[in-house]
Amino acid sequence: MADQINSVNYSTIVVNEGILSISNPFSLYHGKSIDNLQVAWRMSGPINSPVIAVLGGISAHRLVYSLDAPTQGWWRDFAGIGLSFPIDRYQVLSFDYLGGSGETTGPRGDAFPSISSYDQAELLCLLLDHLEIQRLNSVIGPSYGGMVALAFGERHPNRVSHLFIMSAADRTDPLSTAWRCVQRRTVEYALAQGQGEQGLQLARALAMATYRSREEFSERFRGLPRQNAGKFVFPIEEYLLARGKDYAARYKPDGFLCLSESIDLHCIDAANVSVPVTAIAVHQDQLVPIEDMRAMVKRLPQATLYEISSHYGHDAFLKEARALKPYLDSLLGE
Amino acid sequence: MADQINSVNYSTIVVNEGILSISNPFSLYHGKSIDNLQVAWRMSGPINSPVIAVLGGISAHRLVYSLDAPTQGWWRDFAGIGLSFPIDRYQVLSFDYLGGSGETTGPRGDAFPSISSYDQAELLCLLLDHLEIQRLNSVIGPSYGGMVALAFGERHPNRVSHLFIMSAADRTDPLSTAWRCVQRRTVEYALAQGQGEQGLQLARALAMATYRSREEFSERFRGLPRQNAGKFVFPIEEYLLARGKDYAARYKPDGFLCLSESIDLHCIDAANVSVPVTAIAVHQDQLVPIEDMRAMVKRLPQATLYEISSHYGHDAFLKEARALKPYLDSLLGE
Repeated sequence: MADQINSVNYSTIVVNEGILSISNPFSLYHGKSIDNLQVAWRMSGPINSPVIAVLGGISAHRLVYSLDAPTQGWWRDFAGIGLSFPIDRYQVLSFDYLGGSGETTGPRGDAFPSISSYDQAELLCLLLDHLEIQRLNSVIGPSYGGMVALAFGERHPNRVSHLFIMSAADRTDPLSTAWRCVQRRTVEYALAQGQGEQGLQLARALAMATYRSREEFSERFRGLPRQNAGKFVFPIEEYLLARGKDYAARYKPDGFLCLSESIDLHCIDAANVSVPVTAIAVHQDQLVPIEDMRAMVKRLPQATLYEISSHYGHDAFLKEARALKPYLDSLLGE
Repeated sequence: MADQINSVNYSTIVVNEGILSISNPFSLYHGKSIDNLQVAWRMSGPINSPVIAVLGGISAHRLVYSLDAPTQGWWRDFAGIGLSFPIDRYQVLSFDYLGGSGETTGPRGDAFPSISSYDQAELLCLLLDHLEIQRLNSVIGPSYGGMVALAFGERHPNRVSHLFIMSAADRTDPLSTAWRCVQRRTVEYALAQGQGEQGLQLARALAMATYRSREEFSERFRGLPRQNAGKFVFPIEEYLLARGKDYAARYKPDGFLCLSESIDLHCIDAANVSVPVTAIAVHQDQLVPIEDMRAMVKRLPQATLYEISSHYGHDAFLKEARALKPYLDSLLGE
């Protein structure tokens, strides 16, 4: 590993960031259009190396990894020198999602239309045109990013050679929709009180309970509740609320609403995705049942499913860098 | 079936209801005590037949079944003429839980102490004294009622011959605690706005998503969302919110808080439950993992576990009357 690190020339990793302004009205899949749409994008890697789009969950953003601020990239456990994704051999392209809390256009206290995973796929296509990228080596997409990858593969098979998706299916599962609907209704209720942040805390606490697995929580939080001002507080309650508070300080309630809804609206036609797909499913994923991924892979014309076991559940795409390395190696021709 | 109905003499089923007033301060397991505690109880069945206590979930009450108002009993699918539980052969005793929304003492907009399943067990014991019942034939307890049954069996083994519990363990699972904590925090947030009912709607919507199974929701709610005033509403969202609204009209937010917390505080010593136990676990139960019931049954001195499959998940104890009949028959010596 030390040799590998020594052999990398950091200076070859060039970072480009920008805001793409789309002057024509951008028509949305569910109707309506957006004027003056701005897309915040980032590309980093050795100049002229193959380009891979890496798109994360609804809380992800264009900063996939950063050599300057290594703790800031959302895929920091995977993408880096000597890690599972070789940043010295590929250019990584990403963007802030439409409708989210980042620097791409999104709701800012005003009414905002419903956004489809197809809309995000169209933005990716416009970015490729803008950056004069004819064809992506692949799209790597976990969670919502996998939904966008599938939408892109269906719409623009000539612009990508391979999809690598994790914990994402062609449509969402009603129980998972149920959990997200309660989250959105809670945020909406709090927004109506002028306290969106408090709703977002609760929603994120619930979301966290769905991202990990029962096993993980059983191992970590079997302890007794403690008394706080005469009130019992359970170990997992403290953990979830702390995560909710962190999140609410960094994300916008209406951006959360928009992208959470976009997950539930996601519905692509797997039979029309002619691009080869590698799919990773996690047995313990509470949000994307493994059966749904198996069923999708049967409908996809060219796909291989790998099933892994991880007590991180849906969050395996953020945590299981070592377990997923062989599949990435295979994608990237190691 | 028709013969059986004809052979029952309805007039032999006598209903007694009452409020037991406890004049001495009632000491609680988690500290503090309650003065002038009132317990609303109900007993129905043929005079002098063996007595079985039937205790339901936190939303249950003393009306287990009613011949006058058959739709009102919470165990109406099980207890009745020709159903799985023979009401013509046993007296059924039940009571409104301490701390809940019924006619037993509970929070009514004021601060209220934390209630343990042991406290409910003590109330049951006081009721037996009051009604001069030396020994129960059994306690049948699904969900929270099973927790109370276990607490009763640990504390008062000389007052009951058998426990029949469904979807309940000796302690709760952290992921299930997580879901309930979010429910309670949501209710508390809404109560702080003076709108407890709105919080209870959301909490119940979330709770409903945990009571049933993924399979059931997948079968029932695969449809597309509909547009309502320009906003997408998902089929499962409509269902859960309607259930939440119904519930919030009938239950008190602070009674819900108290009993929901009581579930998470539940922790008995299975090794000390010397009474024989029949336990029913449901593979699809999201709240009480089957592994927890298996582990408990290993710790119980005398117990048999039966595992069933039901797409009603945790709610099997309200819905699977036919599937559970053989186990009840075996308990009741049919």
